[in-house]
Amino acid sequence: MAVRPYNFSAGPACLPLPVLEQAAAEMADWQGCGMGVMEMSHRGPQFKAIIEAAERDLRSLLAVPDEFAILFMQGGGLAENAIVPMNLARRGRIDAVVTGSWSAKSAQEARRYADVSVAVDTRAGGYAEIPVPASWQLRSDIDYVHLCSNETIDGVEFHELPDLQQLGCDAPLVVDCSSNQLSRPMDWSRIALAFGGAQKNIGPAGVTLVYARRDLLGHALPICPTAFDFGRVAAEGSMYNTPPTYGIYIAGLVFQWALGFEFGGLRGLAAIEAQNIAKSELLYGFLDRSTLFRNVVQPDVRSRMNIPFFLREPALTDTCLSQAKDAGLLQLKGHKSKGGLRASLYNAMPLAGVQALVDFLQDFERRHG
Amino acid sequence: MAVRPYNFSAGPACLPLPVLEQAAAEMADWQGCGMGVMEMSHRGPQFKAIIEAAERDLRSLLAVPDEFAILFMQGGGLAENAIVPMNLARRGRIDAVVTGSWSAKSAQEARRYADVSVAVDTRAGGYAEIPVPASWQLRSDIDYVHLCSNETIDGVEFHELPDLQQLGCDAPLVVDCSSNQLSRPMDWSRIALAFGGAQKNIGPAGVTLVYARRDLLGHALPICPTAFDFGRVAAEGSMYNTPPTYGIYIAGLVFQWALGFEFGGLRGLAAIEAQNIAKSELLYGFLDRSTLFRNVVQPDVRSRMNIPFFLREPALTDTCLSQAKDAGLLQLKGHKSKGGLRASLYNAMPLAGVQALVDFLQDFERRHG
Repeated sequence: MAVRPYNFSAGPACLPLPVLEQAAAEMADWQGCGMGVMEMSHRGPQFKAIIEAAERDLRSLLAVPDEFAILFMQGGGLAENAIVPMNLARRGRIDAVVTGSWSAKSAQEARRYADVSVAVDTRAGGYAEIPVPASWQLRSDIDYVHLCSNETIDGVEFHELPDLQQLGCDAPLVVDCSSNQLSRPMDWSRIALAFGGAQKNIGPAGVTLVYARRDLLGHALPICPTAFDFGRVAAEGSMYNTPPTYGIYIAGLVFQWALGFEFGGLRGLAAIEAQNIAKSELLYGFLDRSTLFRNVVQPDVRSRMNIPFFLREPALTDTCLSQAKDAGLLQLKGHKSKGGLRASLYNAMPLAGVQALVDFLQDFERRHG
Repeated sequence: MAVRPYNFSAGPACLPLPVLEQAAAEMADWQGCGMGVMEMSHRGPQFKAIIEAAERDLRSLLAVPDEFAILFMQGGGLAENAIVPMNLARRGRIDAVVTGSWSAKSAQEARRYADVSVAVDTRAGGYAEIPVPASWQLRSDIDYVHLCSNETIDGVEFHELPDLQQLGCDAPLVVDCSSNQLSRPMDWSRIALAFGGAQKNIGPAGVTLVYARRDLLGHALPICPTAFDFGRVAAEGSMYNTPPTYGIYIAGLVFQWALGFEFGGLRGLAAIEAQNIAKSELLYGFLDRSTLFRNVVQPDVRSRMNIPFFLREPALTDTCLSQAKDAGLLQLKGHKSKGGLRASLYNAMPLAGVQALVDFLQDFERRHG
């Protein structure tokens, strides 16, 4: 392979090339043990070392406090939409913050298990804003407040999580961080439980990360499957059922890569965040100057990870996608519910990839604008 | 790597070396598309081709009739212990056939969702037999009868599935085939639904196969998470939530390998079954002749896949395991609930590996017997 194309998929998404190369080299024999990682018992010393290192590195990267358990689970964010209420909704009352397609889905699924009240819903405005938390309609005596910190489809991101206590709400905050976990620091003082599928910044689809404050464990509803009971999973070190071992191994390689990542004189998560800011500013800057392309999300809540954008002449969308592909810029098609284009700029996307995208869009605009 | 060790893990387990080699070669670029399989959108044309081929090849290998949907899910057999009753137990009545540790666990989990009656339980005899189906206590008006076709821990296998209709029972038969699926043909005329984790004969942990007769779809209980509703998963072609894409890809490579597998003048699943018979007969033959080692399962229900065996002098167990490892015979330790040794002889274990094991055990017996 001469030059690797740039892959803007919303997930599963691009992974760091050194991670893929190491995985390929170790495929049939991990560190001389005579077995590939896929072939190891999850109870053996080799995989134990792999999962312990992965958890330790993730905890270090995100500065996850000891009072949070980190769980490696299965089913993705969509399964968690049911698993979280089955674990936390003892009172059967949930408040939902709906700022995009994903949080809307979460609220809908939670209704199977609880009375769900929508504290705010920005659908009428096309999911393009986040009203200030002081305006949310929060109830008392609820099990938790749910929000999605980054809406993958709509391109809306919380740049600061709400301080529920300051709002007079003592309920735990549950955060679906599927598409921005590991892209920036997380404010654990405001989070009670967070979850996310791995297939954005962390690794292959099929691994789900759950960060659960330990006082929330052990209260699952009787209908909660044992395999998805957070308390049981935590007590067994994510080994109650056989974990998705290979995906956890890849995630561990990504964590190692992230710990050593350098950008702008920084290292680790700070460097990753700095590059994500630089990448998103580069693309938004172009879009805001463009006469052909535009992003419609309010500037203060624009996502650093997922940037949907549209041509003022929609008939040109397919031409643009096709020429982008020829230029080595892959998977830019917008979500089917939105149309247009979408560039996902996850951690493994280098600044050079976004520069190549902007150069291409600029040239396209010159030729078609 | 000079000679690859033989890996007798009960799962995750050994995979065919050509599969691992192809996966390594394609890791960063699948068939020239510029992306690795882990990096592709599950909705794109490349992954669509991968999952469609995997399903087609599996259907062909196991001769799965069209009236069965094949679902690629997550959570393993343990999650299915809850997911199956949440999908099928409309009347809240299940009969359980308990012939080992796994079917005992399944019955226990099903009690969360239904009244479970144990039709037969061989625990008192150490899970070493399968009483004839005519002796089972089956009820009427039940949702289904559950059995485990191969007990991974106890080494007990159904060599013929019961014909429930002949027993006067018109309930569907649900089969947990986690540890013997793809090792032999399956009698679909007797099965209504089968499920199994992939991490034995099929691929990496994190993929679960469900084979569901289509008339059983669409009747999930209201508490069933949408992501685990068989009807929804079938309607969306296993794409309701993001599937474990890489695991499905590896499974697809295993299916290709299985289709081309040759043994004893046979090809495909017939060759795989013939080799599995030859491997297990080789090891059981030795154990039955041995004065030091023994297997305690009744001969007519001995598993071809998982062979637990014990030293008549238990103090020698650790020495035997340690010398086996030095001889390149890995992961032979018995399950913690049983002690002793266990050799899992899944499809990817060649006859030569079992011969090497028998040679080692014979030599050990000569030295220590």
